[in-house]
Amino acid sequence: MNIGIIGAGNMGHGLGKLWAQSGHQLMFSYSRDITKPKKIAQSIGSNARVGTPSEAVAFADVVLLSVPYGAVGDALKAAGSLKDKIVFSIVNALLPDMSGMAVGTSTSAAEEIAKLAPDADVVEALPVFAEVLNSDSRRFNDRQATVFYTGDNERSKQVVAGLLREIDVEPIDAGALKNSRYVEPAMMLLIQLAYTQKMGQVGFKLLNR
Amino acid sequence: MNIGIIGAGNMGHGLGKLWAQSGHQLMFSYSRDITKPKKIAQSIGSNARVGTPSEAVAFADVVLLSVPYGAVGDALKAAGSLKDKIVFSIVNALLPDMSGMAVGTSTSAAEEIAKLAPDADVVEALPVFAEVLNSDSRRFNDRQATVFYTGDNERSKQVVAGLLREIDVEPIDAGALKNSRYVEPAMMLLIQLAYTQKMGQVGFKLLNR
Repeated sequence: MNIGIIGAGNMGHGLGKLWAQSGHQLMFSYSRDITKPKKIAQSIGSNARVGTPSEAVAFADVVLLSVPYGAVGDALKAAGSLKDKIVFSIVNALLPDMSGMAVGTSTSAAEEIAKLAPDADVVEALPVFAEVLNSDSRRFNDRQATVFYTGDNERSKQVVAGLLREIDVEPIDAGALKNSRYVEPAMMLLIQLAYTQKMGQVGFKLLNR
Repeated sequence: MNIGIIGAGNMGHGLGKLWAQSGHQLMFSYSRDITKPKKIAQSIGSNARVGTPSEAVAFADVVLLSVPYGAVGDALKAAGSLKDKIVFSIVNALLPDMSGMAVGTSTSAAEEIAKLAPDADVVEALPVFAEVLNSDSRRFNDRQATVFYTGDNERSKQVVAGLLREIDVEPIDAGALKNSRYVEPAMMLLIQLAYTQKMGQVGFKLLNR
């Protein structure tokens, strides 16, 4: 396939390199530093070239959009018409300093509960599905599911982590209570996979290397 | 420990049963059906009893809050003061029909991009971290990371899934583009684990059974 890449950061470069190895043709475009797409294309070799965003779109069977969230408007303007194009977006709505998200999430059940019970020490963890919990084992083919916990008091978090260990899951400290705004949608993702996508009992395992 | 349980649904029941087996003492409270906490306590045996929410709080070293999101306000009112209590919340902000979230998420980068490029066919997938992508292997101890993709056109999604397979990750169909509002925070959770929690290179593996 011809893959037009808008955005010449680490992600666009890394994906492009692997796809070039699979035999796809690439065109890199769009960077604050105009020498960067050229350098990347040269490092990849004959399967890669550079162009303007609109040239990359014209060239492409698939347009990879790999710019920071704040650059999306400008990049799409430069791209021009995307009529009938597949746009493969790898853009997450991260704030530039990664301290939070620019759109999409602003609070969580955990934070609302902490507001309603300001004297309490709230720790949140969303365990495995009830069907898993109420079955003979919480394991998925012998593997423990990861359950993320959040809270603002270390000692209380350790108590909750202990209770999670007792139900045979792997507790992982996901930081401050406000990080529940990321954990809760992640659990909602599992619910969507289970019911809308009809995958049944699902869970996360955190990979680390 | 003494664990006071507010909410007598499948989750409170399932967790309580396992914790009773570990030797903890339980008090169940709060249900629309007042016979339900009693039935659950009886099924668990001598480690479990019933009480009002405020009795469960007085009894508890740890208060498990396991009610639907819509019942949180009422349940906390019934619980009374939670001063210096550890509240272990397993409440997610799900709408009653699980069609979405009541608070915390309302849009996503993917949906905003689709609004800015209405003619394009946007498919989103947030691959593994750039550090993983640009290393010798995308595997975590021989295991493929799961990458979720969303979109509204099946054929385009299959193209993106193929491109993901080529970079040696496991593509999982996470449904419609609007489900990016769950996938994007899930990826932000990984970023928090990597940087704030200093876990380094992390990824998700979807478990299914």
